[in-house]
Order: sequence, then C-alpha cells, then structure tokens
Amino acid sequence: MDYLQQTFTVQFQYKVYFTSHLFTSTNPVFRSFLLDNEQEGVVKKILFVVDKEVTRFHPMLKEQIVEYINTIPSYKLATIITISGGEEAKNNEEYFFKVINAVNRFGIDRHSLVVGIGGGSVLDMTGYASAIAHRGIKHVRIPTTVLSQNDSGVGVKNGVNYLGKKNFLGTFAPPVAVFNDFHFLTTLSERDWRSGIAEAVKVALIKDADFFCWLEENAAGMIAGDKDAMQYQIRRCAELHLQHIAKGDPFEIHSARPLDFGHWCAHKLEQLSDFTIRHGEAVAIGIALDCAYSYLTGRLDEVPLKRILNLLQELGFKLIHPLIEMDTTQHLLLQGLTDFQEHLGGRLSITLLNDIGEGEEVHEMNSDCIVAASHWLQDYCITAQRQTA
Amino acid sequence: MDYLQQTFTVQFQYKVYFTSHLFTSTNPVFRSFLLDNEQEGVVKKILFVVDKEVTRFHPMLKEQIVEYINTIPSYKLATIITISGGEEAKNNEEYFFKVINAVNRFGIDRHSLVVGIGGGSVLDMTGYASAIAHRGIKHVRIPTTVLSQNDSGVGVKNGVNYLGKKNFLGTFAPPVAVFNDFHFLTTLSERDWRSGIAEAVKVALIKDADFFCWLEENAAGMIAGDKDAMQYQIRRCAELHLQHIAKGDPFEIHSARPLDFGHWCAHKLEQLSDFTIRHGEAVAIGIALDCAYSYLTGRLDEVPLKRILNLLQELGFKLIHPLIEMDTTQHLLLQGLTDFQEHLGGRLSITLLNDIGEGEEVHEMNSDCIVAASHWLQDYCITAQRQTA
Ligand SMILES: NC(=O)c1ccc[n+]([C@@H]2O[C@H](COP(=O)([O-])OP(=O)(O)OC[C@H]3O[C@@H](n4cnc5c(N)ncnc54)[C@H](O)[C@@H]3O)[C@@H](O)[C@H]2O)c1
Ligand SMILES: NC(=O)c1ccc[n+]([C@@H]2O[C@H](COP(=O)([O-])OP(=O)(O)OC[C@H]3O[C@@H](n4cnc5c(N)ncnc54)[C@H](O)[C@@H]3O)[C@@H](O)[C@H]2O)c1
Ligand SMILES: [Zn+2]
Ligand SMILES: [Zn+2]
Repeated sequence: MDYLQQTFTVQFQYKVYFTSHLFTSTNPVFRSFLLDNEQEGVVKKILFVVDKEVTRFHPMLKEQIVEYINTIPSYKLATIITISGGEEAKNNEEYFFKVINAVNRFGIDRHSLVVGIGGGSVLDMTGYASAIAHRGIKHVRIPTTVLSQNDSGVGVKNGVNYLGKKNFLGTFAPPVAVFNDFHFLTTLSERDWRSGIAEAVKVALIKDADFFCWLEENAAGMIAGDKDAMQYQIRRCAELHLQHIAKGDPFEIHSARPLDFGHWCAHKLEQLSDFTIRHGEAVAIGIALDCAYSYLTGRLDEVPLKRILNLLQELGFKLIHPLIEMDTTQHLLLQGLTDFQEHLGGRLSITLLNDIGEGEEVHEMNSDCIVAASHWLQDYCITAQRQTA
Repeated sequence: MDYLQQTFTVQFQYKVYFTSHLFTSTNPVFRSFLLDNEQEGVVKKILFVVDKEVTRFHPMLKEQIVEYINTIPSYKLATIITISGGEEAKNNEEYFFKVINAVNRFGIDRHSLVVGIGGGSVLDMTGYASAIAHRGIKHVRIPTTVLSQNDSGVGVKNGVNYLGKKNFLGTFAPPVAVFNDFHFLTTLSERDWRSGIAEAVKVALIKDADFFCWLEENAAGMIAGDKDAMQYQIRRCAELHLQHIAKGDPFEIHSARPLDFGHWCAHKLEQLSDFTIRHGEAVAIGIALDCAYSYLTGRLDEVPLKRILNLLQELGFKLIHPLIEMDTTQHLLLQGLTDFQEHLGGRLSITLLNDIGEGEEVHEMNSDCIVAASHWLQDYCITAQRQTA
C-alpha cells in the first residue's frame, strides 16, 4: 500500500492563578500575565465577555477593567459585552453570535485575547466562540462560580447546546490562562456556593481518599461560609482535574472518561428538569445513584457508601428528586445512558466505585439494577429524614 | 504569585494514501483502513458527504460506496448526502447545517466516521462540521481536485466563510486518514486540472529548488495530460506540505506562515472576484506579484524571476487580471494585506523570495512598491504576449 505517514505533537501550556480582586489597580497578577505575553510593535486587543449576574453583583467591575487595561500601553480594550448567565448562555445562539460579531466588528485577531468572566455556562460558550473564530483566538477564563473554579473553568473543553442536546457543538481548546478570583464567589447564591462542591466529592471519590476525608471534616465549615476551607477545596479540586487531564487523554480520543463519574445521570437530570437543577446538584444525585448501584451490585461496601451519602447530605444536597422516582419516568432517565454513550461514541464507558478513592471502568449497566438503586436511594433518604425529624 | 502550571502534549497521526478507484470492490485500501480501526463489540457508523459535481461525473460512486461498506460487518453506512461543490459549500450555511443535522438524525458519535469526498471547499466545510459536532467526530478526507490532493486535503485546517470573510470560522483538526484517488482527477475541467499546480510551484519556490526544476521540465507534459507526471507532482507536493506541518507549528500558534507565500494577494483576489477566480489561479497571480516585488526591492535576481514567470505561464496561468491593475483598484487589493494580518493576528508576516527554493519572512511591505510590482508584472506579460504573437 502506498502512503505517507504524518505524525506530530502539539504542546499546550497554561497557568491557573489563584488571587482575589483581580482588577483592583494594585493587583499585579493580570498585568504581569499581559506583560509576559506582549509582542514587540503590536498593540493587542482584548475583548471581554461578562456574565450579567456578575456585573449585577459587582457593579464596579466594568469600570475597574477599563482603568486596569488603560494603564498597559501594549494592550487595548476592544469592548466589554455582557450576556445572560446560566444555561441560557449555551441554549440561546443569540449570545454566541454576539461574541462572533464582536470579533468581526472590533477586528479581534489571532493575537488578540478574548476574556470570559462568569459561570461555567458563559465560559463554555465564550470558549467555543473563541475557539472557532479565525480558527482559534487566544482565550482567558475567569471563572466566577465554585463549579467553574474547581472544574469546568480549568479544563480544556467548551461547548454550546444545540437541537436540545447538551454540548452538541464544541471543541477541545485549552485556555491561555485561568484566573480564579475568590472574591467573585462571595456573591454567589447559597445554591451556587454549594453546588460546585459536588465535583470535589466526585474527583475525591475516584482519585484521592485523603481529600475525601478532608471534605468530610470541612463540609459543615464550607457550608457555613468558611472561606479558607472553600479556597483549599477549590485549589485541590482544580489540581486533581489538571493532573488528570495532563496524564490522561486530554482531547478524549479514547472512550474512558473517569471524570464523568456520576455524569450520565446528571446530564439527563439537567435536561429533563429543563436546567432548573444546577449541574453540581445533578452531579450529587448522579454520584449517589451510581454509588447505590455499586453497592447493590456488590462492588462497594455499606460503610463507605453511607459515608458518601452522609457527606453529600451534609453538604446540603437533596438526593431525592421526582425525576429519579423510576416508576414513572424510568425510561426517561435510562435514556441518559444512551445519550451518554452517543456523546462519547462507541462502547459505553462508565466509572463505578470499588472504594473511596478507587473507581473502575465498566462497559455495561443493568437497567433493573439502576431502577433498584434509585428505589433504594429514595427509601434511604426518606428513612434518614424521618430519623433526623 | 500563586498558580498551578498545566502542561501536556497531544500526538496526532494519520496516513495519506495514494490509490485509484478507491471504492471498486477489489481495492483493499479503504477496507484495510476500516478494519485497522475496528472496535470490538461496536458497529461504527459512517456518514458520507459528497461533492455534487463528483457524483455527476462519477454516477456509479454512490452505489459503489453502498456495496463496498456493506461487505464490512463492523461498519454501517448511515447515509450519503450530496452538497454543492465549489466556494458555495463554504459560503452557504445551509450545507453546514445539512451535515450537522445528519450527525444528529443518524446518531453519528465520536467513534463514527464522517467521510468527505470532493474539492477543497467541500472538504473544508465537512471537516469543520465534523470538528465541532460532539467536540470532534473522526474525519476522513477524500480530495477530488489537484489542489485538494496536493495541498488543502492533506493538511490540518478546515473552515467556512462568514460575514463575507474567507475561513472566518474554522478549526485546526487533523483528519484520521486521507485517500488521494487519482481516478477522480480525470474528470476535472481543464481549469481545475491546472489550478492546483500553483501550490506545487509555491512550495517548490520556498522549500525545494530541485522540485522547481522538475516542474519546469514537466510543465508542458502535465498540461497535456501526462498522468504519471501529475501523480508525481501531487505526491511530492503533498509530502512537502506534510513535512512542513510536522516540523513547523501545526496549529499556527505563532505568526509565521511560509506556506502562505503569495496568499495575501490570492485571498483578496478570490474575494474581489466573488470567487470566480479559482484558488490556484489566484495563488499563481499572488506568487507572480510577490516575486516581482522581491525583484524590484532587490531581493531576487532577474534570471530566477523570469524562470518563475515562465513556468507559471507555461502552466497556462494568466498573470494579467483587471483586479490587479492598480490604478483603479489599488486600495481594494492592498486591503488584502490588512485582512491577512488580521486573520493571522499581530504583526504582519509575509514570505518573500531570495532565490528559487529560498523564502524569507518579512514584517512589512511597501504599498508603493506593491503598486510598482503590479505595473511591472502587467507590462512584462503584455510584452511577452506581443513577442509570442
Ligand atoms: N467545560 C467543561 O469541562 C465543563 C465541566 C463541567 C460543567 N460544565 C458546564 O458548566 C455549566 C455550569 O456552570 P456553573 O455551575 O458555573 O453555573 P452557571 O454558569 O450556569 O451559573 C449559575 C448562576 O450563577 C450566576 N453567577 C455566576 N457567577 C456569579 C457570581 N460571582 N455571583 C453571583 N452569581 C453568579 C450565573 O449568572 C448563573 O445564573 C454547565 O453548562 C455545565 O455543563 C462544563
Ligand atoms: N484547508 C486548507 O488548508 C486549504 C488550503 C488551500 C485551499 N483551501 C480551500 O480549498 C478551496 C478550493 O479547493 P479546490 O481548488 O479543490 O476547489 P473547489 O473545491 O472549489 O472545487 C472546484 C470545482 O471542481 C468541482 N469538482 C471537484 N472534484 C471534481 C472532480 N473529480 N471532477 C469534476 N469536478 C470536480 C467542484 O464541484 C467545484 O465546482 C478554497 O475554499 C480554499 O480556500 C483550503
Ligand atoms: Zn461536571
Ligand atoms: Zn493555497
């Protein structure tokens, strides 16, 4: 057979910074990043895309950005556009086109920067638009929710929803830098403060038993507003995610996706609830269900199972939800397995749990056992409620 | 400063096969590729996207594809969609959505294949749609023009036009395999047979003086239909492009783009002519103009310059065009420099020629010299015409 073999590797690098009050004039972090990326003889343009909720809670932010960028001669602020936060940013293509049209109107090029500031939804959409405009404009992420600081914002994926399917369009496109500004988190609703911690439970369960113990010890504190504990949680969770991406299969060329533990169910719950359930809330339920499944199929012992369910409940997650009462809607939830397989492609790959800190990949789940697990979980939670009452 | 450093590399691999009559039942090349990529327990789906002109000239193709795929149990033909060829495929978003909607309707997943068959335009659009559906479906290219077999089809870029700008949306996404089937080329129009050879002249000029001599010796033969010569030209040109991509900066993270020699002008000519000028035809003019500029600015000697212009003319390229008569439209053509800079971003980077086989990157071009070069080129061609007459 006559052929030419092509082989090459591409290296990707970025830093995830931890700071607070990023755009205060005295904070050097963002400025030093910009100066490190100066290019002789070129004034680089920056386009900001900001979550509307963030500007609502931080009304001085825009002004601070204008002043901050104005002090750096090698950069020019193109404009700041604001867009609706939450899943709306990914569902409504109007926002995507707002970014694409700004890229065109302001002559944003491949040496410019697009900076997204917001929750995971705004960052996913902004990252996607940046990745495909001019075949990829450099993209900076400034996540403003716990979930996006400890998980989605530090990774390499982006996307928007299309034809009613989550992340139907998207790419793998690493950011050039991520800035986790803790101050933004202080204005989160109680729900969003809590919600992202589910991803820490997830990654601890499959990768790091010590971190799981730490979470048990600090759950009450974090929920009560302990900022030091919250910062540690974010940093450790981000670190575990980064390590996993770097050591594994960053662009998911193969099927295994251990970081998607609990997610086949979570994605379906989000969709079935019309995105009224938060991603982290859905992940908490998904973890609980897959742990109950692991327990009922003899993989996970009762003691670790109960520790896991207790931790999730202590973090304030509701593990009962009408959508997982399987008698009425089992066909709907089970469809989540098929959707998940289709999104991954090929063989089903699901992570189940053998012990705290020890996941295992399987390629099949038994529908009857899933239904049984959901019943067991609902019963367990109702009994637990009664006992506390 | 407090940060986590993320670093990883991703390896990309694909083969570029050379064959003829790919879907004849006795041709093993495509079958063996599919069998090498089987996955146990999975029947992979294949979606074909075919250039309408190709099916018009090869009316048995669809039937052959159906039969060919049917003999392989581990694969299933999802469907074959046909779309308009030429720049229309990239200009009209209807075709893009046709592919995306087929991905949805037929449940094409990340382990399926999308196979594009057609000229560079159909491949660019199909590659783009595949790259963003489900964050990237594996994509096979079967280029059917000289240009796409020796250049665009073997590389890593894709894209569509948007807001009237060429390749405004696109990604870098290597195919999983390329099949150069020589038989397709036999039905090309004289224009498209000739047009792609401009890319061979381009790459020879900046990378390989011996190949340039070979082109001089074989120009008349190729134009007269010498298939062996044409096949050698394609193979060598593809090889030089592949080497350049692998050794250089595959995803063009930096500004230098030597393979874009002659292209700042070419892209603008295509756009100004509303895509009635073929890409290769525009590249031939772009090369001539940048060589004349290199000559007038003292970089390139007269002898190599005349060899270059002679070769282009012997290949049948017209180097005179109303759009480069600078007196009337100079501002329009010069805008090509700005567009090019914007698409690349940052500093202007243009390759000029010091000698045959030796390009050099510059960061500035003088508008007056460009205008002078265009006048010089028009005069030269008119004189040459008179002498032949
Ligand atoms: N790309 C990935 O790898 C990845 C991974 C996990 C999740 N995700 C995606 O991330 C999204 C969820 O992200 P999320 O949990 O950050 O939620 P979100 O982005 O939907 O934000 C939740 C709400 O908080 C608001 N908000 C954001 N920052 C705020 C602040 N500082 N103060 C007050 N309100 C604020 C938002 O406007 C929104 O209303 C989902 O679409 C999910 O699919 C992506
Ligand atoms: N991705 C890249 O790296 C890259 C590089 C260079 C050029 N390009 C792009 O490629 C496109 C040009 O590609 P092209 O020169 O192949 O032209 P094309 O795709 O526009 O095709 C030219 C014409 O030939 C027809 N055709 C195709 N195959 C045929 C066959 N076998 N027999 C008869 N007719 C056939 C097409 O329908 C069309 O009408 C441009 O959009 C250009 O920007 C991309
Ligand atoms: Zn998640
Ligand atoms: Zn070209």
